[in-house]
Amino acid sequence: MSGNTTAATVLGLGAMGSALAGALLDAGRPVTVWNRSADKTKPLVTRGAVAAGSAAEAVAASELAIVCLLDDASVREVLEPASLAGRTVVNLTNGTPRQARELADWVSERGAKFLDGGIMATPPMIGQPGAFVFYSGPRDVFDAHREALDTFGGSNYVGEDPGLAALHDLALLSGMYGQFIGILQAYALIRGAGLSAVEFAPLLSGWLTAMGGFAEQAAAEIDRGDYTQNVVSNLGMQAAAFENLPLAAADQGVSAELLAPLHQLLLRRAADGHGAENLTSVIELLKN
Amino acid sequence: MSGNTTAATVLGLGAMGSALAGALLDAGRPVTVWNRSADKTKPLVTRGAVAAGSAAEAVAASELAIVCLLDDASVREVLEPASLAGRTVVNLTNGTPRQARELADWVSERGAKFLDGGIMATPPMIGQPGAFVFYSGPRDVFDAHREALDTFGGSNYVGEDPGLAALHDLALLSGMYGQFIGILQAYALIRGAGLSAVEFAPLLSGWLTAMGGFAEQAAAEIDRGDYTQNVVSNLGMQAAAFENLPLAAADQGVSAELLAPLHQLLLRRAADGHGAENLTSVIELLKN
Repeated sequence: MSGNTTAATVLGLGAMGSALAGALLDAGRPVTVWNRSADKTKPLVTRGAVAAGSAAEAVAASELAIVCLLDDASVREVLEPASLAGRTVVNLTNGTPRQARELADWVSERGAKFLDGGIMATPPMIGQPGAFVFYSGPRDVFDAHREALDTFGGSNYVGEDPGLAALHDLALLSGMYGQFIGILQAYALIRGAGLSAVEFAPLLSGWLTAMGGFAEQAAAEIDRGDYTQNVVSNLGMQAAAFENLPLAAADQGVSAELLAPLHQLLLRRAADGHGAENLTSVIELLKN
Repeated sequence: MSGNTTAATVLGLGAMGSALAGALLDAGRPVTVWNRSADKTKPLVTRGAVAAGSAAEAVAASELAIVCLLDDASVREVLEPASLAGRTVVNLTNGTPRQARELADWVSERGAKFLDGGIMATPPMIGQPGAFVFYSGPRDVFDAHREALDTFGGSNYVGEDPGLAALHDLALLSGMYGQFIGILQAYALIRGAGLSAVEFAPLLSGWLTAMGGFAEQAAAEIDRGDYTQNVVSNLGMQAAAFENLPLAAADQGVSAELLAPLHQLLLRRAADGHGAENLTSVIELLKN
């Protein structure tokens, strides 16, 4: 078969797996699908997919097997009965770097090639602008299947170590959840005072954009391990002023628990004699 | 005196107070300064300020007194001996909404007008593009002194309640600290794997910008109190997948304590039967 008609199998048809299979179908590829509960295959079969009777049968149908299941344990359970020899398994199941590395070994022992991926998109975004996926594993395996993988969104290959895609994925999710923490805490304060979150939103968005330069500045400090340059508002001052956040929250009937661990790190780092450094310095306390 | 030559007094010459006095001097205003340790007045006197021998003398020198001290207690201590009758006190000291309201009453009892302010800038940013200050208190007092206040940066008047400036200030700071939490946690993971934070920074910045729409979406949900519309990745799924963050962090020798309270809120809210809602729904658990 020529380039854009290479067959692919998709194992796992939750919202994400279904979106992946749909993107492959939209690209004109022969797609075989399998899901534990077979009813999930119907909308895709209507769009031209072939429903396999078992995971083993699905893996047999295409050289490329895209796996998108509940968790790492499900992946092994589903692939166990299949004959993997000569196949390429691309695992897009949520997991940790360690799980990806161990799965890479497990798949390799069964004679298959392996890529791990971390999807940076929600199911409706798959195949749309803005969606992208981290991949890690052997470069030649990535290159061989890149055209199929590109149907999901931008493909960002991050290295041979199979754990790197999950690592990049989880690091970005950590960043996002921190951003969510700040936004939720800000609105909790605003709503606690009886004000409108919608009216406050443009101020908050503008401020977070203005403060976004911290990502670049902090990165340079962290790579150098030097937090003493260009200190404007040192962490000792910030640790002291931080006290106003839980005080104000309490006055508004709002918990400040989401920010408490950062406050504790600032106080500990100041007590350790680093009060004159930049706030970034607290990252040293995250090393176990 | 005409518009831009109205005199002003600045009490407190830490980095911020000195920047405020400098901005007033740059605008060509007669400026009287006072600081507990008098050596801080020297650079400003060189630039044309008059150093007062006491806080009372400084307050006597101008109708407008800008106060920027260590904390709320310092403000009363410094202003106590001064004759405030007929003066306007603009308090730019860090504090809580409650402290601002109580200080407004205290100043009012002494026959002075009062505005509270929250400075959204570091000292070097004062008078530069991007700097802005929230003000709250009587609108006519704000209007009467707006021209002087505009020398610090954009003036954002947020309402008659004197607590509103501090509330807006602390809500934005909460948002910023959440953003910092995410960025620090992301880099801790990346560095734990021996990778470069600087190389990861553009990915992180781009991702945080892409996810910034959460501020607007969450605001609408929060004001409605309805978290059940347009659910793509529900909080139950996120609570389950969140587990990978501490697991991956532990594998990289990194603490995940900064994100732990959000994880707990997600798990509690899911256990309370709200697993099918949007993540924003956890804000209900912040109400004490």
